Amino acid sequence: MRASFYEQQRRFRIGEAPMPAPAADEALLRVRRVGICGTDLHIFQGHLDHRIPLGGTIGHETLAEIAEAPAASGFRAGERVVVEPLKTCGACRACRMGGAYLCYRLRVLGVEEPGGMQEYWAVPVANLLRVPATLGDDEAAMIEPLAVATHDVRRAEVKADDAVLVLGGGPIGALIAMVARRRDARVVVSEVNPFRVEILRKLGLDVVGPEQDPRAFVETWTGGDGADVVFEVTGNPAAVRTMTDVVRVWGTLSMVAIHGEPLPVDLYRFFARELTMHGSRLYSRQDWEEAIGLAASGAVALAPLVSRRIPLESLQQGMEEALRGGPVMKVLIDLAG
Amino acid sequence: MRASFYEQQRRFRIGEAPMPAPAADEALLRVRRVGICGTDLHIFQGHLDHRIPLGGTIGHETLAEIAEAPAASGFRAGERVVVEPLKTCGACRACRMGGAYLCYRLRVLGVEEPGGMQEYWAVPVANLLRVPATLGDDEAAMIEPLAVATHDVRRAEVKADDAVLVLGGGPIGALIAMVARRRDARVVVSEVNPFRVEILRKLGLDVVGPEQDPRAFVETWTGGDGADVVFEVTGNPAAVRTMTDVVRVWGTLSMVAIHGEPLPVDLYRFFARELTMHGSRLYSRQDWEEAIGLAASGAVALAPLVSRRIPLESLQQGMEEALRGGPVMKVLIDLAG
Repeated sequence: MRASFYEQQRRFRIGEAPMPAPAADEALLRVRRVGICGTDLHIFQGHLDHRIPLGGTIGHETLAEIAEAPAASGFRAGERVVVEPLKTCGACRACRMGGAYLCYRLRVLGVEEPGGMQEYWAVPVANLLRVPATLGDDEAAMIEPLAVATHDVRRAEVKADDAVLVLGGGPIGALIAMVARRRDARVVVSEVNPFRVEILRKLGLDVVGPEQDPRAFVETWTGGDGADVVFEVTGNPAAVRTMTDVVRVWGTLSMVAIHGEPLPVDLYRFFARELTMHGSRLYSRQDWEEAIGLAASGAVALAPLVSRRIPLESLQQGMEEALRGGPVMKVLIDLAG
Repeated sequence: MRASFYEQQRRFRIGEAPMPAPAADEALLRVRRVGICGTDLHIFQGHLDHRIPLGGTIGHETLAEIAEAPAASGFRAGERVVVEPLKTCGACRACRMGGAYLCYRLRVLGVEEPGGMQEYWAVPVANLLRVPATLGDDEAAMIEPLAVATHDVRRAEVKADDAVLVLGGGPIGALIAMVARRRDARVVVSEVNPFRVEILRKLGLDVVGPEQDPRAFVETWTGGDGADVVFEVTGNPAAVRTMTDVVRVWGTLSMVAIHGEPLPVDLYRFFARELTMHGSRLYSRQDWEEAIGLAASGAVALAPLVSRRIPLESLQQGMEEALRGGPVMKVLIDLAG
């Protein structure tokens, strides 16, 4: 079977691999779609070399169909599933507190453990969730990032009428905005990429584009109060400077982006306005279930976020293009073609 | 009467001033004690020149006695009072949300408005709280910083058995530690100044001293989990680097210190452990009442924190000494002698 291998230094290799042999608690999956995620771009650039083995197979936004599953699992061949890509220790403080997705010894399928960028993949049945028949393959492949967004919005406790500013309108930012809108919040996305701005506007989202300063916009929008909730989803130091300026007294900053290096933060503003910032990572099973429900009901539009599908053989090129930015939102690897 | 005047560029002048003429809603106070606070040291160094008028009189940790008060106020000459040093607008988002102490147009007595470092002082009666007779003048002068500490501990929601690390064992850090201990938390203070370490230990507090790395200490102390709550009270960039390393998954960072410049913060750690950081500033009336109760009951030892009393004429020298660090905790200006 075909598989991809991370060779470090911005190189992926496509080659042959032996068919995975599922363990007693695992299903053998035939992969249909894998999304390229911001984390994958960090891996591509070598930022996570301490976490990923040389020659490892990445990919954690996966839609697959069951090839084989243990009889007792209840899964049958041909059923479509998405994969919750987490292995947890069950013993650390996070696991004991009910936050297993924050496990101190977390192993992510597609980072520390083999991921979905291969034709066949053996995954514990406990990590599988069924996909409703109404969803197309592309939409179903977006359930994982949607679960990230449902988690982020839940954790930020977004309420009706909240003025919510999302810094960064890539796939996760767009999904956060759409999930927050479902809570009847007033949502605005700040995004500088004109291609993405156009998609966001087509989704009916209000956008602060590259021609406008988010600080001046929020000042007018909120009558000088500041936004109730600000999501930082850019990964950009400029947004970290902006975020503390645009949030109201007692307001909430949600740190969704991955910042590889410590960045200057205006701690005086935290003091002066008694701001709160929390990190927001991954998802619990509840977030997946909410995501599947939102996707199946059509309440959150997923298809418009998919810019294109590429074959596994184009992974290297797809990574390079995604890193350059430009006219791209979500890129899916299509292994079902 | 004698008064002090901030002349900028690290200069205070002591001189004569006309006796203040209280307005209809004000009492005339005869000042007995004024504490020199970390904020005053920021003023001395020019960090708050945008907030304080040239020639202004500072001082916001004040114990005074009533010289004259409006008959309807209920205050009588000779009664001892402490001063809640805040003037708020009543109209901004903070005031409307019930957080008037975070008023967007806040004026602090002793910063924007005249403060207590003068013999007589006119203050609105609404800002006065009576001092129990059981408290000595020095202890009563510590009620304002104690109200800061009760606010900080309340806002951080410190609970019984919490592992609480206080970074910085100056007056506020020591008070936070003692208030947190009253909640049956397990409290440790990290402090490098040997003079302060000795005072903290005499107060029965556990201390990580200059000979020990707080990271290694917390690793052992919490069995690898991290502390439940960490207070940053140093104002030192090194502590900002430490704080994210020593707090557990879903743990709380309380930003009490004033950091004049943006500082590097490990935002990846916020993401990875879903940490929460909030700013903590000043106090509400509830915090003052709790502070007066704790002081009156003797539950929090205040007298051991007072290093010395100096006359108003030594203000300049007191500031210079406090800034040099060394063998000093709280310095009080004594105007009652």
